[in-house]
Amino acid sequence: MNIIEIIEKKKNMLELSAEEIEYFIKNYTTDEIPDYQISALLMAIRLNGMTDNETFYLTKSMIESGDVIDLSSIEGFKVDKHSTGGVGDKVTLIVTPIIASLGIPVAKFSGKGLGITGGTIDKLESVKGLKTELSSELFINNVNKHKIAVAGQTANLVPADKKLYALRDVTGTVDSIPLIAASIMSKKIASGSDGIVLDVKCGSGAFMKTYEEAKVLADTMSSIGEKLGRKVIAHISDMDNPLGLMVGNKMEVVEAMELLSGNMNNTHEDLYEECVIIASLMYEIATGKSNEESVTAVKEVIENGKALEKFKELITIQGGDVTDLHLNETQYIVEVKAIGSGTVEKVNALSIGEVSLALGAGRLTKESALDYDAGVALVGKKGMQIKQGDVVARLYSNKGITQDIIKKAEQAFVLK
Amino acid sequence: MNIIEIIEKKKNMLELSAEEIEYFIKNYTTDEIPDYQISALLMAIRLNGMTDNETFYLTKSMIESGDVIDLSSIEGFKVDKHSTGGVGDKVTLIVTPIIASLGIPVAKFSGKGLGITGGTIDKLESVKGLKTELSSELFINNVNKHKIAVAGQTANLVPADKKLYALRDVTGTVDSIPLIAASIMSKKIASGSDGIVLDVKCGSGAFMKTYEEAKVLADTMSSIGEKLGRKVIAHISDMDNPLGLMVGNKMEVVEAMELLSGNMNNTHEDLYEECVIIASLMYEIATGKSNEESVTAVKEVIENGKALEKFKELITIQGGDVTDLHLNETQYIVEVKAIGSGTVEKVNALSIGEVSLALGAGRLTKESALDYDAGVALVGKKGMQIKQGDVVARLYSNKGITQDIIKKAEQAFVLK
Repeated sequence: MNIIEIIEKKKNMLELSAEEIEYFIKNYTTDEIPDYQISALLMAIRLNGMTDNETFYLTKSMIESGDVIDLSSIEGFKVDKHSTGGVGDKVTLIVTPIIASLGIPVAKFSGKGLGITGGTIDKLESVKGLKTELSSELFINNVNKHKIAVAGQTANLVPADKKLYALRDVTGTVDSIPLIAASIMSKKIASGSDGIVLDVKCGSGAFMKTYEEAKVLADTMSSIGEKLGRKVIAHISDMDNPLGLMVGNKMEVVEAMELLSGNMNNTHEDLYEECVIIASLMYEIATGKSNEESVTAVKEVIENGKALEKFKELITIQGGDVTDLHLNETQYIVEVKAIGSGTVEKVNALSIGEVSLALGAGRLTKESALDYDAGVALVGKKGMQIKQGDVVARLYSNKGITQDIIKKAEQAFVLK
Repeated sequence: MNIIEIIEKKKNMLELSAEEIEYFIKNYTTDEIPDYQISALLMAIRLNGMTDNETFYLTKSMIESGDVIDLSSIEGFKVDKHSTGGVGDKVTLIVTPIIASLGIPVAKFSGKGLGITGGTIDKLESVKGLKTELSSELFINNVNKHKIAVAGQTANLVPADKKLYALRDVTGTVDSIPLIAASIMSKKIASGSDGIVLDVKCGSGAFMKTYEEAKVLADTMSSIGEKLGRKVIAHISDMDNPLGLMVGNKMEVVEAMELLSGNMNNTHEDLYEECVIIASLMYEIATGKSNEESVTAVKEVIENGKALEKFKELITIQGGDVTDLHLNETQYIVEVKAIGSGTVEKVNALSIGEVSLALGAGRLTKESALDYDAGVALVGKKGMQIKQGDVVARLYSNKGITQDIIKKAEQAFVLK
């Protein structure tokens, strides 16, 4: 067996065997196979696809490339969730304390943001003092004692994915459903939870632009999870519009807290609904209760303040300062005004994501520094009636706001 | 403009512009773009193809990556030929002296062999003393004075092709018609001749396995040549069977000489016919005479010995010893006997090429050493009646001949 034969096979649309997939993942992880051969293989996979079996063995080999986290010392059914990423998606910050407050252990590993897609780790770290690098002992202790811990991925979790993702990012091979599915599922499964709720986003602000693509990705991931003995539920949600009102790290933490406080003036119904769906699916998968019962339980802990309490507990046990849970004024603030009158047909999530990135809230490359306080606060949302000159958003930045950025923000509001 | 955008475009089946193609060739040649991005692009080209315009601009950019040889100080219409490579293909050794003896200047740059495909440079260098590294002054002097020079490609001729070919070789992207066409034509055009005869081989012993593929390659190359102001004729010839009787470096030089001596006992009609076709096309392209006149002229210089005289002159002026134009006995010689009786339906060129490679006549990698005296001498040819036990070939080697090699040689003779 050699890598050229494997590339030739995939190029000629033949199915790779489990052994061939294991061979290239193993030898790429240990640097035995150079980047230039794997990038050719990745492009062949992107263009010729993978069968369900190939995607399964790819995920399995990727899991085996590194450590698998052992959560067996945590009692109970551990539940995890994953979002394929979107603009203003702070669902993890809201649903994990909801679930933990319902007594279900949440052992959550999250990533950093890249491009227009934010990352839970960055959002949490925007809170003064908060740490997401936890020793495995502290992580497990926190889950056992507080039912919740959110940590950055450990260095040796799916090292094959780290190498593959870095290569895909610079070779035009990110947008491949089997590669996305294997990347997500290998990390979720290596992270050790028993049940996984997948929140697959589709629309202009997501990787998957159409419902059909999102459905294929959701089905592919569910199938991999089931084959590896996990309970998996996938939910497909809209990402044509940003979720909630806030896009930006600290701004999203504050919005999450407002929602859990029951203060709907500083957030939006769409975020509340999405969080109820995801949290209820997590509860359902963990307890086996009906969806109706799960929805009731979730709404209850929001209303009675237990979820908010757990949210603050999470901040505190990871070293964060709860008195820092407010917005900081940025050096530059610009009001974005409606350029016409009518009903908002949509707020373009991709444009708002790009504006947020330009303001300093996101990373263009892995090395970029973040401005935690930068971001976009939406006023206008889909369905709202607006008049020319109305304030539809506010932009926050510490590095200046150009006319181009303001124009892009204005044009994100599509009227009908 | 950046390389990721270019990869994305080709991946999404959009046409690359002249500027985009120039950008990636230029920056890859100067090592500004890494191998792993170009190999992904090459795979996208292999799988999604290239338009005629893209292939043309690719060739043009490759030519511009290095030196273009100036043959303007050579009087007359300079003619070149190129074979896409086959087993026992010693046509260049025969047609170049034919053309030179007809007074047409032949300024020929040739390559070394790789895999089952032999190279003219290796064949010539099997003659004692013969040099193919000529200074450009000596090269041009020889063409002006003797109408002939055959040299290895200079270091800075199409450096982009050297890098691209090395990368294609290890990333499963050799078998792409636009990439093959651009590789061949960039070198032919940078070599400075006015007219080019392309000998496109098809069959088991060639890159192009079918006539249809060979036709597409021939048309693609002709179109590129015409657009760059060259006269081009493409001829498609069979490579299911080895050409002539000899496969091996020195053995092929000796066979070429025998043919030019008019001694048909040590060569085969198929080689004679192929050489008459290629030589007459070269003469036709250089003089504008009819094909009938060209065929007559070519046959005449073979019959009257002028082509043989020019062949010996070529050997001599490049430092070769004409008294060395004979076969040397190798340490191991094995007779291959027919394993059945009947009519030879074909002699599998691929198998004979692989046997010759295993005997030491070819290079498995660019670094492999050659045994100039090793090779296969065919006795059986297509259409011949044979009886079980008849000698159908002789194998020559200095490194031993395994049973596996003998078996492969036996099985190359397909009977009906």
